[in-house]
Amino acid sequence: MRIYFTFEPRPDLREPLLAEFPQVDFIFESGITNEELQQADVLVTYGEDLTTESIQQATKLKWIFVASAGIEKMPAQAIMERGILVSNVRGIHKTPMAESMLAHILAIKRALPWMYEQQKKSEWSKKAKQTELRDSTALILGPGAIGSEVGRLLQAFGVKTIGCNRSGNEASNMDKMISFGQLKEALPSADIVISVLPKTRETTHLLNEEHFIAMKSSAIFMNFGRGNLVDEKVLIQAIEAGEIEYAVLDVFEEEPLSSNNPLWALPNVIVSPHVSSHSSRYVERSLEIFKPSLTKWLRGDRDLENVMELSRGY
Amino acid sequence: MRIYFTFEPRPDLREPLLAEFPQVDFIFESGITNEELQQADVLVTYGEDLTTESIQQATKLKWIFVASAGIEKMPAQAIMERGILVSNVRGIHKTPMAESMLAHILAIKRALPWMYEQQKKSEWSKKAKQTELRDSTALILGPGAIGSEVGRLLQAFGVKTIGCNRSGNEASNMDKMISFGQLKEALPSADIVISVLPKTRETTHLLNEEHFIAMKSSAIFMNFGRGNLVDEKVLIQAIEAGEIEYAVLDVFEEEPLSSNNPLWALPNVIVSPHVSSHSSRYVERSLEIFKPSLTKWLRGDRDLENVMELSRGY
Repeated sequence: MRIYFTFEPRPDLREPLLAEFPQVDFIFESGITNEELQQADVLVTYGEDLTTESIQQATKLKWIFVASAGIEKMPAQAIMERGILVSNVRGIHKTPMAESMLAHILAIKRALPWMYEQQKKSEWSKKAKQTELRDSTALILGPGAIGSEVGRLLQAFGVKTIGCNRSGNEASNMDKMISFGQLKEALPSADIVISVLPKTRETTHLLNEEHFIAMKSSAIFMNFGRGNLVDEKVLIQAIEAGEIEYAVLDVFEEEPLSSNNPLWALPNVIVSPHVSSHSSRYVERSLEIFKPSLTKWLRGDRDLENVMELSRGY
Repeated sequence: MRIYFTFEPRPDLREPLLAEFPQVDFIFESGITNEELQQADVLVTYGEDLTTESIQQATKLKWIFVASAGIEKMPAQAIMERGILVSNVRGIHKTPMAESMLAHILAIKRALPWMYEQQKKSEWSKKAKQTELRDSTALILGPGAIGSEVGRLLQAFGVKTIGCNRSGNEASNMDKMISFGQLKEALPSADIVISVLPKTRETTHLLNEEHFIAMKSSAIFMNFGRGNLVDEKVLIQAIEAGEIEYAVLDVFEEEPLSSNNPLWALPNVIVSPHVSSHSSRYVERSLEIFKPSLTKWLRGDRDLENVMELSRGY
């Protein structure tokens, strides 16, 4: 049994893995080579290094463990044709992402960007425009694992949470649920609008001009799902027209954002370069998901955690 | 009955007050005059405008409602001699202050200061040094109303909370309690050290060099209590020597901080100009505390909320 990692975990994470699975040959390499692919039974990857050609090279491959949640960049067709099992680390992002979202919300409410600028000028001023998060209302588009974790934290801050998904069916940590069809009616009550929706046909340009017009002019809009949610021109127009007060964006229609994109310089827009899920503890957390699955795999059990349905896109 | 406000609440807050207490003559003025002081039965003030002389002028004064929590700047001796009742808005700061503290902690953990600088350069980079708040340990010096609220929020983020007060007696939302005497032993386990201690003889220079040496080199130290807690030179030395990683300071030995103070420019020091309790909803919240007390006062009940014990300093 040969397991090929296309990234190199730190020694303190690697050693316990070797000790726990002495029967396995582990290969750790930064990057992907055809030579190693040809011999690998299991591949552990962030997913971005796989192509149709690399799948064709990996003739022995039966399981791909993706230490990531999105799969847009994976050659789904080639993997399905070969019947390779794919599992991922769904849910691993919920802690760092929810912490990032709360960081951005609280930074705005408590005027941290202003404060940092005052400090650079060595200027003692109390003219901060500070308000409170408590008693706000947040509308969360896509209250799955990540959205529910944000909801849980927001509720701890005394925020009313409204979840919004396709069906309007119940989700955790939401005071109220609505369906996509009811979105426009609900937007005027929201102080914060957060999307953590995945990229699907249905979510592409789900938000249009009318949605931004329906939002409070004091609203904070946050896209931490995928950039397809809203046409960038619509978003820029909404900010420039003052239809919303703040936009915090972790995802974009095109990534990386080009250096001449107007979003960089727009006042009250925060550009987070798709790092909200990053964490120094990411690999540690990935291996915590990988190890029980590997134990199952070694005894022939294929009922792994987070098996992906490539045909459905998640 | 004449009630003299030395600040002017917004019309939308003032009008309900006038409507609710038609039997009272309300005077609203920005600032304090002897003429009004001489006629006032009740004074509503932020406390900073009172002197021994103004108390002597206020011959009819029986109750001072202080829309603030600290009383260092009040002429306590003169007030006590006259037997004037003083009540304040203790607890009003807990929401904005706890939100400020969480904002600073999460901003550091999720690399927001770095992100803001990247954005100014229109530079898409994922090299953020981001970590997670979850599974950290926070040591809270002074777990009263504010400290317990911070503890409650930190616990929601999966943080272990250690409260530290004089006695080591139980406090809300603390996983563990220790006394001042046990502080040095507990510091090496804390990722975040927060003080919300008031200024008393006992808290002056409570922290010395050895305490900072005992802290983790990755620790975030936050002073949101009073500047007397630590000698500024000791604090600067601790940061320069790398004994702690970050200091977030809302209070200082001398306020305002002079423009040539080295703290402004030290890397990994955040200067918050004593605004952590500020909020656009402050006056609204103060009046929510004032009104029930005024109702009691008018019917002769002197058992008001938050009566201060000036002789003890709180």
